[in-house]
Amino acid sequence: MKQLFGNAVVGQSGGPTAAINATLAGVIRGAKKSTCIQTLYGMRNGVEGLMKEDLIDLSAYFDGEKKLELLVNTPAAVLGSCRKKLPKMGEDDAFYENLISIFQKYNIRYFFYIGGNDSMDTVAKLSEYTRAHDYEMIILGVPKTIDNDLVGTDHTPGFGSAAKYIAVTTQEIIRDCAVYRVPAVTIIEIMGRDAGWLTAASAIGRVVNGIEPDLVYLPERVFDMQTFFSDVRAALAKHPNVVVAVSEGIRFADGHYVGEGTQTGVKDAFGHAYLAGTGKALELAIKAEIGCKVRSIELNLPQRCAAHLASKTDLMESVMLGEAAVFTAEEGITRQMMTMERLPCENYSIEFWHKDVSEIANKIRYVDDAFINAEGNHVTDECCRYLLPLIQGEVKCKYENGLPVHIIL
Amino acid sequence: MKQLFGNAVVGQSGGPTAAINATLAGVIRGAKKSTCIQTLYGMRNGVEGLMKEDLIDLSAYFDGEKKLELLVNTPAAVLGSCRKKLPKMGEDDAFYENLISIFQKYNIRYFFYIGGNDSMDTVAKLSEYTRAHDYEMIILGVPKTIDNDLVGTDHTPGFGSAAKYIAVTTQEIIRDCAVYRVPAVTIIEIMGRDAGWLTAASAIGRVVNGIEPDLVYLPERVFDMQTFFSDVRAALAKHPNVVVAVSEGIRFADGHYVGEGTQTGVKDAFGHAYLAGTGKALELAIKAEIGCKVRSIELNLPQRCAAHLASKTDLMESVMLGEAAVFTAEEGITRQMMTMERLPCENYSIEFWHKDVSEIANKIRYVDDAFINAEGNHVTDECCRYLLPLIQGEVKCKYENGLPVHIIL
Repeated sequence: MKQLFGNAVVGQSGGPTAAINATLAGVIRGAKKSTCIQTLYGMRNGVEGLMKEDLIDLSAYFDGEKKLELLVNTPAAVLGSCRKKLPKMGEDDAFYENLISIFQKYNIRYFFYIGGNDSMDTVAKLSEYTRAHDYEMIILGVPKTIDNDLVGTDHTPGFGSAAKYIAVTTQEIIRDCAVYRVPAVTIIEIMGRDAGWLTAASAIGRVVNGIEPDLVYLPERVFDMQTFFSDVRAALAKHPNVVVAVSEGIRFADGHYVGEGTQTGVKDAFGHAYLAGTGKALELAIKAEIGCKVRSIELNLPQRCAAHLASKTDLMESVMLGEAAVFTAEEGITRQMMTMERLPCENYSIEFWHKDVSEIANKIRYVDDAFINAEGNHVTDECCRYLLPLIQGEVKCKYENGLPVHIIL
Repeated sequence: MKQLFGNAVVGQSGGPTAAINATLAGVIRGAKKSTCIQTLYGMRNGVEGLMKEDLIDLSAYFDGEKKLELLVNTPAAVLGSCRKKLPKMGEDDAFYENLISIFQKYNIRYFFYIGGNDSMDTVAKLSEYTRAHDYEMIILGVPKTIDNDLVGTDHTPGFGSAAKYIAVTTQEIIRDCAVYRVPAVTIIEIMGRDAGWLTAASAIGRVVNGIEPDLVYLPERVFDMQTFFSDVRAALAKHPNVVVAVSEGIRFADGHYVGEGTQTGVKDAFGHAYLAGTGKALELAIKAEIGCKVRSIELNLPQRCAAHLASKTDLMESVMLGEAAVFTAEEGITRQMMTMERLPCENYSIEFWHKDVSEIANKIRYVDDAFINAEGNHVTDECCRYLLPLIQGEVKCKYENGLPVHIIL
């Protein structure tokens, strides 16, 4: 096996998560152990910063375990992020030539990109270009997304922490809603775009303590308003405090998002079309149809940035996957995305592996059919058992004067 | 001092908090130590349950420290709550006669009511009636409200935990917003009704690590849209990621809530007037006026139920205040609300005391003038120093299988 000697660069891209810095900490730790990598640079704001040589010497900055530990528990992307889509091969040669010249200038032979679906597209395109133009460089993608919608991996780093936040918060909201005896519906709107993984996480309590939302709607099933009304009525007949978890991405049979409903023709006080969320749209619908007390809660950004409630399992795996990426790179493996495979044993256990990035980029992994009940209004026990190991363990963030300590580069 | 011997009853009322069960745990602990109280009953759903004799024997149920510890860390009101307003004296004698007969039946001589403003009204009315009708009973109110808007006490139990949730979450959101370089405004909508205490808590970071929202708007100052636009423009001129904290209760000069704006004449897809939140209204306004990327986040229910992120100081004080209420009752003191007074010493320290409930009920404590800056778009250092001690310390909730363990009665 031929080994490449030189420097490395790492970037973060796409939406931040509570674990993307943990993966970065893993890459830094791996690079420090590496005999092939001299200096690890961080690109600020992903490839956008790389294009402008906006680099930071991470090998020098992270001079001990203390800073790395803070990095693991810091939410969002400490290097900054971007949503830059690289040009297709042949469309903008100057763009790639500029990148190559920067790689040459800094003798960069290793390229690690931590990101989601779009970021794997960047990895694929850069791999293709460097191979076609004989620039010797190892290029690896390291996945992250709270949405868990990448194919080829059992789950994605960042998902477990978001899932834990959602599972715990749902438990707390259910307690809060239980205090009154007046019939009431509480709708929790959860992220995840077109995949229902995060929304499914609201129901994990079922296999822990039996406490879960009454109804769970994922984007993998067509949403029907009349069926929803009868589901809610049936739930209200059982007990007064009905809690419903809905994915932001649920759609009607005609393909329109439920949250789009309030956009059509609606103008706000400022004369602008009103774009309400899915939860708000359902809140209004229930109010109109059933007339009971109803409230909607959009969990919003804390789903991806609540580092204080991260899953210890998720953070540990994220660090290890980052480190594994460096070891994989040292073996000369390139054009791959790092993956996690769940071993078929009784106790949860995963193995780090890698897959060809071209098989992964621009695809979406939806919630399995076996994970959704026949009525399409809840998840199955099998789904909860898949999710449960991913939210295990609590992190011990460092607090100073009542607030968490984050690292800022 | 004449001592009353008999049983006691305790209830929870009004909106739940992360600390209202801690106060209940204190009352239970106090009653267990008491030589005057034989049995402590809990009324389910406040006076509503009491009227129907829906009581639970708390002395029997809480047979050890283990259950009490779980109770301290359980969010929402474990006894259930209500929003029942008692009739005025002379308006409905039958109502009070029914209550007295229940007190006599169970030999209840101590009445503890944990609640906010409206609940102190209940305490005041019941005190008045029992005194006028010679039913010997000690009646004490124990405050709770996340809003911190009760007069006569340095702060209210429950506020510190909500403030900590808001302070920590704001820190995390600021990190999340910092990842992109595109000019963007993020608006965080915070509870508190007509008092700005909770919104002020978003800025505590200033005296800890210098990280705080760019702008903070409290209901204590008139909100002006044009001034808001120029404030935001000035902030965007300094850096691209502007974070704004706004209270749900901010109003225009004409007295209308900012969140009302989108109600006027706006119909949603279901034909109903649209009631947007304050944050949403400002999001739409910024989008229309400045046109940059803008997002609003309503922190919503987790502000009052995120027990996993409670303030240790708040929970400890809440327990002690509940216990102090029992000791105060044993001294024959009645018709009072328990209070906390901050001692004028360098290190934060409080003393438990009590005040006549008639001086407290139906009044609102607003944020002090000295706590708001001259421009009315932020808080002062003095405000942060008042708030800081209240969010100190992190709780160790019990987790089982990745989820917090709550007690359910």
